[in-house]
Amino acid sequence: MPKLPLISIENAVDDSSIVKLSSPTKLPNATGFLWNRAMVMQVNCRGYVNSQFMQPEPAKYSYAPNMEAKSFIQPEHSYFSHHPGRFFYLKDEDSGEIISLPYEPMRIELDKFSFELGNSDIAWSIEHSGLQITIKVNLTKDDLVECWFFSVLNLTDTPRNISIYPYFSIGYMSWMNQSATYDEELNAIVADSVTPYQKVADYFNNKQLKDKTFFISDTVPTAWHANQKKFEGEGGLHQPSALQAELLENVEARYETPVAVMQFQQQLLANERKTLQFLFGPAKDEAEIAMIKEKYLGHQQRSQALNEYRDYLELGRACLTINSGTCTENSGFDDFFNHWLPRQMFYHGDVNRLSTDPQTRNYIQDNMGMAFIDATRTRQAYIRAVSQQALNGAMPEGVLLHEEAELKYINQVPHADHGVWLPICLSVYLNETADVSLLSEMIAFADSAEPKTFTKHIELALDYLINATDHRGLSLIEQGDWCDPMNMVGYQGKGVSSWLSLATAYALTSWCDLCDEYDIDMAQGKYDEYRFAAQVLNVAVNEHLWHEQWFARGITDEGRVFGTSEDEEGKIFLNPQSWAMLSGAASEDQQLDMIKAISKQLITPQGVMMLAPSYTRMVEDIGRITQKHPGVSENGSVYNHAAIFYVYALYQVGQNNLAFDLLSKMLPSLENAEVTGQLPIYVPNYYRGAYHQLPEQAGRSSHLFNTGTTSWLYRCLVEELCGLKGCARGLQVLPKLPSVMTTLSGQRVFRSAVINFTIEQTSGISTMEIFLDNQSITGNVLTDLKAGQHYLLQMKVPMTTKVNIGNEGTSV
Amino acid sequence: MPKLPLISIENAVDDSSIVKLSSPTKLPNATGFLWNRAMVMQVNCRGYVNSQFMQPEPAKYSYAPNMEAKSFIQPEHSYFSHHPGRFFYLKDEDSGEIISLPYEPMRIELDKFSFELGNSDIAWSIEHSGLQITIKVNLTKDDLVECWFFSVLNLTDTPRNISIYPYFSIGYMSWMNQSATYDEELNAIVADSVTPYQKVADYFNNKQLKDKTFFISDTVPTAWHANQKKFEGEGGLHQPSALQAELLENVEARYETPVAVMQFQQQLLANERKTLQFLFGPAKDEAEIAMIKEKYLGHQQRSQALNEYRDYLELGRACLTINSGTCTENSGFDDFFNHWLPRQMFYHGDVNRLSTDPQTRNYIQDNMGMAFIDATRTRQAYIRAVSQQALNGAMPEGVLLHEEAELKYINQVPHADHGVWLPICLSVYLNETADVSLLSEMIAFADSAEPKTFTKHIELALDYLINATDHRGLSLIEQGDWCDPMNMVGYQGKGVSSWLSLATAYALTSWCDLCDEYDIDMAQGKYDEYRFAAQVLNVAVNEHLWHEQWFARGITDEGRVFGTSEDEEGKIFLNPQSWAMLSGAASEDQQLDMIKAISKQLITPQGVMMLAPSYTRMVEDIGRITQKHPGVSENGSVYNHAAIFYVYALYQVGQNNLAFDLLSKMLPSLENAEVTGQLPIYVPNYYRGAYHQLPEQAGRSSHLFNTGTTSWLYRCLVEELCGLKGCARGLQVLPKLPSVMTTLSGQRVFRSAVINFTIEQTSGISTMEIFLDNQSITGNVLTDLKAGQHYLLQMKVPMTTKVNIGNEGTSV
Repeated sequence: MPKLPLISIENAVDDSSIVKLSSPTKLPNATGFLWNRAMVMQVNCRGYVNSQFMQPEPAKYSYAPNMEAKSFIQPEHSYFSHHPGRFFYLKDEDSGEIISLPYEPMRIELDKFSFELGNSDIAWSIEHSGLQITIKVNLTKDDLVECWFFSVLNLTDTPRNISIYPYFSIGYMSWMNQSATYDEELNAIVADSVTPYQKVADYFNNKQLKDKTFFISDTVPTAWHANQKKFEGEGGLHQPSALQAELLENVEARYETPVAVMQFQQQLLANERKTLQFLFGPAKDEAEIAMIKEKYLGHQQRSQALNEYRDYLELGRACLTINSGTCTENSGFDDFFNHWLPRQMFYHGDVNRLSTDPQTRNYIQDNMGMAFIDATRTRQAYIRAVSQQALNGAMPEGVLLHEEAELKYINQVPHADHGVWLPICLSVYLNETADVSLLSEMIAFADSAEPKTFTKHIELALDYLINATDHRGLSLIEQGDWCDPMNMVGYQGKGVSSWLSLATAYALTSWCDLCDEYDIDMAQGKYDEYRFAAQVLNVAVNEHLWHEQWFARGITDEGRVFGTSEDEEGKIFLNPQSWAMLSGAASEDQQLDMIKAISKQLITPQGVMMLAPSYTRMVEDIGRITQKHPGVSENGSVYNHAAIFYVYALYQVGQNNLAFDLLSKMLPSLENAEVTGQLPIYVPNYYRGAYHQLPEQAGRSSHLFNTGTTSWLYRCLVEELCGLKGCARGLQVLPKLPSVMTTLSGQRVFRSAVINFTIEQTSGISTMEIFLDNQSITGNVLTDLKAGQHYLLQMKVPMTTKVNIGNEGTSV
Repeated sequence: MPKLPLISIENAVDDSSIVKLSSPTKLPNATGFLWNRAMVMQVNCRGYVNSQFMQPEPAKYSYAPNMEAKSFIQPEHSYFSHHPGRFFYLKDEDSGEIISLPYEPMRIELDKFSFELGNSDIAWSIEHSGLQITIKVNLTKDDLVECWFFSVLNLTDTPRNISIYPYFSIGYMSWMNQSATYDEELNAIVADSVTPYQKVADYFNNKQLKDKTFFISDTVPTAWHANQKKFEGEGGLHQPSALQAELLENVEARYETPVAVMQFQQQLLANERKTLQFLFGPAKDEAEIAMIKEKYLGHQQRSQALNEYRDYLELGRACLTINSGTCTENSGFDDFFNHWLPRQMFYHGDVNRLSTDPQTRNYIQDNMGMAFIDATRTRQAYIRAVSQQALNGAMPEGVLLHEEAELKYINQVPHADHGVWLPICLSVYLNETADVSLLSEMIAFADSAEPKTFTKHIELALDYLINATDHRGLSLIEQGDWCDPMNMVGYQGKGVSSWLSLATAYALTSWCDLCDEYDIDMAQGKYDEYRFAAQVLNVAVNEHLWHEQWFARGITDEGRVFGTSEDEEGKIFLNPQSWAMLSGAASEDQQLDMIKAISKQLITPQGVMMLAPSYTRMVEDIGRITQKHPGVSENGSVYNHAAIFYVYALYQVGQNNLAFDLLSKMLPSLENAEVTGQLPIYVPNYYRGAYHQLPEQAGRSSHLFNTGTTSWLYRCLVEELCGLKGCARGLQVLPKLPSVMTTLSGQRVFRSAVINFTIEQTSGISTMEIFLDNQSITGNVLTDLKAGQHYLLQMKVPMTTKVNIGNEGTSV
């Protein structure tokens, strides 16, 4: 058999892509994810699954073997043998050999293994001992059910006697009550539990919870088992005792850990194929299980569900496809931007990471990305966000999306930055739509029923930010800004943040620019006030926080400037540099100094670290960030959300080569998969940093697909790299190709016009030449694009200089 | 090799006992436990360990592989392959064979296996392939450290080359920060973490937490491994990849799940023995680890620590030892009462189940048991309890034992019964000590600094109870009484509890009796008022709750009487019957009816169930109890705390045979171990009930050694079976031997007098004959016992009638 490449990318029939992994051991943490508006599942290549659904808070139906803490999703999720999973034991009744599929829990080496991540399903194609096995799972558009498909084909010329045993973890459901048995009428194993509680009020709160887990089969099993411990026996999960007998013994779980196991004894004639279909999920009662069964079990039902689910995901198609040819070292570059990044961005924007109280900053940025997919959703989200603003201008810590939602976890800590995001992110919405009507929408407040215009809401947010400054004119940080765990710089009410000061300046400037561009009416004198306030902030940051080559990160409650070369750890932070470029605080000389310093201290093969050196001990006037593990999350990882801010800023100051270099480093790819450990289907929230301190772990992906990176990454692609950015008059054309990318073509959908474009670096010209439908264009704005119409746009751009200043300092 | 009995009991050198289990698979959940005032560990025969320490709330140093929920200790704890444990892999370097000790995770069948539970240590004696291995663990008197001892003896005549690899689970410590490496100076693997938090205030709260876990060795390892996942590799915990190489690769964990593994390559000459010593536990910093090392590492240090720990446990010696000869079917009967029950009772009384806020009812009852061990502690506890009483008489939900303690979990739910326990349990303290000075102690209140006498505190509690009754004169149940999850009978403020009404009557009567006996001064008129109130309660219960053959359990908010034959489930509850006997509410005829009904509906081979039939669905006017799994905990298990109330009540009404029969059924024994699954070293909080509904699971032990049963069980032994009960004038003698127990001898320590006694059923006599130091005694009170003096007490009692009425109705 020819050796398969470790990872490959193929086109799918529906014009999406399939990423395939041919080893269950090389990237053991590799995962894909599926979701709908009510649930999400992260599927590991070896068969482990993390899944949760909303009721309205996240809940489980397939649990760990012990009582797990409720928590937000953690990076670098750890798997272990009894981790929840969906496995299939397969016994060759003739030879007695037992294997497990897709790989866990027996870990038998298979003749052929392929883990296949598609847009709307996740599958395995496996061959072993003359059997070809296909396993597939998809979700449905709306319901709480995993739809599994299992097929086995006898590749040999002799009949084969086999038993197939799906093993679906149900796990430790509840200390109050848990049990499971086979329900003949439903042809299902149904596990029952009571969500633990102690207070009477919770009984009523819990009454509607879906405390059952079902596993339905389309085929009547030969036998079944619902008792995890007895199934496993002394053999262990890697050699379950119950599989030694010819038939499972139909064992229930009675206040014992449930599991769903069925046995299907089958004879396969030569070249015969058998298929099985299973449904797995949570339910309130048997009636609901019967409804799910009715709706999704059967060949036709399955096809229809799959089509509807595809249609749902199709709603996530974004406004751009590109073809970069062979211009990058990343062979999956186009595929990632054309399929996977929009998919991830859609997940963020459409279901808000399946949180009922997304942090306000995440909610606004995630919905900025949604403007490239479905701008009406962005509009709704931004209206919702300001409707939860206080009349004093303060934006909430999190945006409540459900009437029963509450602010949880980090949303109970006061952060100072929530006001800056809307003025900044709003421009994408307006650029994509030119819908200035949003600005005059009348919207009430969290603490006042009297509505005011959207414009007024923004002004109140900006006024609040301007007032939240200290005697030096710098922004108070409270218990954190964008950086949540930087919680002790200003918890006594005095510490300030350079980043937040610059972000406030940038928010003010962005808003004024937007008002210029879209002719928005501000309150009397506000425009000048905001322009002036931005300047004052920039000056103050320069006065108090510029330190030799870069901007410090802040000043603590006690007046200590930190984030400078005088610190032993945390000498340089990325965010103040990026945002000084955005806010205009940094002069060109300063920009070059900063770029050099960053290139020397922060750049790694996986991208740019958020700070360096990572803290290795608590610093009490900085806070929790210093207690995180070095190189992890905010403590100096390649935190992609910060990295993409830098990339975006570099584009604003004309550092196109460096911007592209860093953008490329951030992308997961076939080429870097063995370092990152992940497949190129999402950008993770971080790669391990602390590159010089802990080189061995550096570069590892967090495998966490929740990240504010997506919308900015896509924005960089659309507005900067391709330079196809909306404006009041139409579509502004200003590509920013790096020197390595001599040509780039693609299709941009803009205000419902369809524009096929090519960009070409052309020698011998010094200014860009633009042709629309072969007609030369003066200026760089396409003003008369018509919705529904197709255009051909050709851009000839001057050759890009190879070296940006600062880039030569890159240390890796 | 001769086949060992599955379980055996041997005398230990220190006059305590050792319970031995010869199979790791027959009772896979069998455990022993060790504790001191700061920590507790429950050790499973296969090598799994649950451990926690107080700082001041329970914390871990050996964690599960995922983020576990913080919770109270659960019954029927579930083990799985990555459950925390202390294992030793052993490689025969000559043959290549690898085994794991004591049994997990490889589960290799061993030539000889013995799990040995001693008073102060837990050990395994194992033989395999010519090697004899001893593993032992003990705690220290005060510190947070497990002291492990490992020895291997070459039983053969040829040299053997082996590697020993202790594998101690550290587990998933923290999502903020976790790492581990080998510290050469300490010769230890030290794992480091940061307890996760998000709010600034918690940083300061957490500052003193012991976030490190250490594993110290007395011998420098050949190699080490601190990275769980890499150690395990693709081989799995049952065949770790890292053991394939000759040497471990000295691998750290860096934001990866830590583990402590060391390798000791050793040559063992013929008949040579090697020993290793390890220390494992939590610490704040390296200095603390060094201190622990200094204090406990080394042969002499180990001996001294063990002696001190033994001395600590010796403090738990109680006031009675017995010798019942061959009178019971339980060959470990005496051993259990002489060693294990006092030990368990001491655990409850001395460390209050290692809770910082024990429920008030538990605290008072547990400290009732302490009166048989060290009555000064009971005195302190009862003073502490009333010092947290409100001035209106209400006793608190829980007693706070630490200045930082808070009422947690079930203590946040209002229960109506907390006032009844002190008047009831106080008699044991007075009986053991005659210390009436307690009654005049001046003690303040939770909400008033003005002190009042202990007597007044009791009266306020009783007044509060008398007032907490409805128009019928029945006690309001609020959101629960003794039965925590009976939380919806009266949550609307109207439902009443028959049990609580009876318990209140019994508390009033007990207090009046005590005042009679000890000549206690009550406030003017209180005595008559209390006697009258008790009668009124008894009458009201009879009027509203007697139902054909037994007392119902209560009346709901809506006025529905429940716990009668008209109910489909929960027809009969044990507690109202027991307490009607205690309170005097039940006439003799009623008693016989009740006994018959109980014997028919509630008795099982493992004892008497708390209710039947167990609920199988929610009953909204009863509450959470009906949602628990049938046969589990309060929902109709053999809940031993309720069962011992019944036994105690039966003794009060002269049903000595039945009382003894049920007391015996409750005891874990060699004979019932294969049904209960536990070893006879503690009485569990329950055995599975629902005997007629779910016979297959019935009888299984919860393996939970926290239970209010212990003090009442011991009280039944001392005051009832042996009939050696203190009173104002001295020691009252009134044995209550069942017919099967023709003789019983033993030693009773009473007010520091030492009384060796024999009790003999003697034919031909109709009244008891008593001899003290061979002198016949008139009456049945020994009045002039002198502290420190030894006595010989002989009691000749009439033959006990074989059949108590009601007993013939026993259905099993």
